[in-house]
Amino acid sequence: MRLLLISNSTNAGEAYLEYPKGHIADFLAASARKVDTVLFVPYAAVTFSYDEYQAKVAARFAEFGVKVDSVHRYANPAEAVRGAQAIVVGGGNTFHLAKTMQDQGLYEPIREAVAERGVPYIGWSAGSNMSCPTICTTNDMPIVEPMSFKALNLIPFQINPHYLDAHPDGHAGETREMRIEEYIAANKGMNVAGLREGCMLLAEDGKLSLIGKKPLRLFRYGQAPKELTADDDLSFLL
Amino acid sequence: MRLLLISNSTNAGEAYLEYPKGHIADFLAASARKVDTVLFVPYAAVTFSYDEYQAKVAARFAEFGVKVDSVHRYANPAEAVRGAQAIVVGGGNTFHLAKTMQDQGLYEPIREAVAERGVPYIGWSAGSNMSCPTICTTNDMPIVEPMSFKALNLIPFQINPHYLDAHPDGHAGETREMRIEEYIAANKGMNVAGLREGCMLLAEDGKLSLIGKKPLRLFRYGQAPKELTADDDLSFLL
Repeated sequence: MRLLLISNSTNAGEAYLEYPKGHIADFLAASARKVDTVLFVPYAAVTFSYDEYQAKVAARFAEFGVKVDSVHRYANPAEAVRGAQAIVVGGGNTFHLAKTMQDQGLYEPIREAVAERGVPYIGWSAGSNMSCPTICTTNDMPIVEPMSFKALNLIPFQINPHYLDAHPDGHAGETREMRIEEYIAANKGMNVAGLREGCMLLAEDGKLSLIGKKPLRLFRYGQAPKELTADDDLSFLL
Repeated sequence: MRLLLISNSTNAGEAYLEYPKGHIADFLAASARKVDTVLFVPYAAVTFSYDEYQAKVAARFAEFGVKVDSVHRYANPAEAVRGAQAIVVGGGNTFHLAKTMQDQGLYEPIREAVAERGVPYIGWSAGSNMSCPTICTTNDMPIVEPMSFKALNLIPFQINPHYLDAHPDGHAGETREMRIEEYIAANKGMNVAGLREGCMLLAEDGKLSLIGKKPLRLFRYGQAPKELTADDDLSFLL
């Protein structure tokens, strides 16, 4: 199984998908089977169209010579997944993504492709949440109700993308750490990887590593949070 | 129907329930039937116990001579609701609150008490989300899965409590406004009241007004957001 799980598409002040593009290109180039076209899942988009989303991603992927097909163009999306060389799930609203994927029956074909046939999977933000057992560590607003909080369950731990330490001055709402502490209190035994912006996780052949300059913050009930860096072997999380 | 819907329990740097306590006391004192004891719903608590939560609220309510009973102490919580003089739903995690209230069958008895018998309802944060048609405009992490996103539906619009304009510097995650814009795009025709910290809504006899120094930011699909103040009549939202 090969997964590239990215915290965020875009760092503040940078162009769209600018910082991760070299890693995406390398990840696809390293595939055992040649990838010249990826199948994109645009269903996290809410305030812009799937066509626009596909075009935006395609423009970036064109820089390294990979075409972007999109699942929303198919009458039978599950069939499109079965023929995909690689699967790319973009960010946006995680609830909208989960609901649409569930409504279209995409979980099983994607799991089968990625977990059983080794089709590469790339996700960012909501697309990284989607690789987890559930969507329970998303930051997004529950704007629509999916059938279930279950996600693709490609990895056995939870990612919190866009993990941040900052909290607006004078604001009394919960910090991100407090929200994750609630999650682990209600889900004892689960690991949560707080993945800061500009960082990604690479899972390959049973090994997991962090790419990026900022450490990952790992949460587990009953333990003090741990900071793990790109030099650490994270495979114990798998 | 009488509702006091508070954005947040506590302003940054102040004591718990300090800023709204005068309004809570006045609201209860103005009840047609005398309120000497409220029934508290502590189910939004996740990282601390229901006993602790009740004690914390009871200490503040004691300052104006009102006792705090809690629904978690009853073998039959729905029966406790039926006998309540007033209902108070505290903040914490909205998903945990909704799931527990749904599991215990509390929606119908609370709706019946508040909407049909005029029992006063006070909520803050998650407790204000709970008065809305759904929990879809909460800021909370979906740490547990409720049976449904439906809430008590005591008002016909959505509240976003802890509404904030600030966004951490250099962070690329969505702003609160962007999240609410996703909600109204997916739920056209719904109104969302962004209720800033330190503010509350008072609904009484079909009239709705804002209490607090900061304006409320009103969102509706296809319209520019509006800022409404304590001088405006908000009854059109009901």
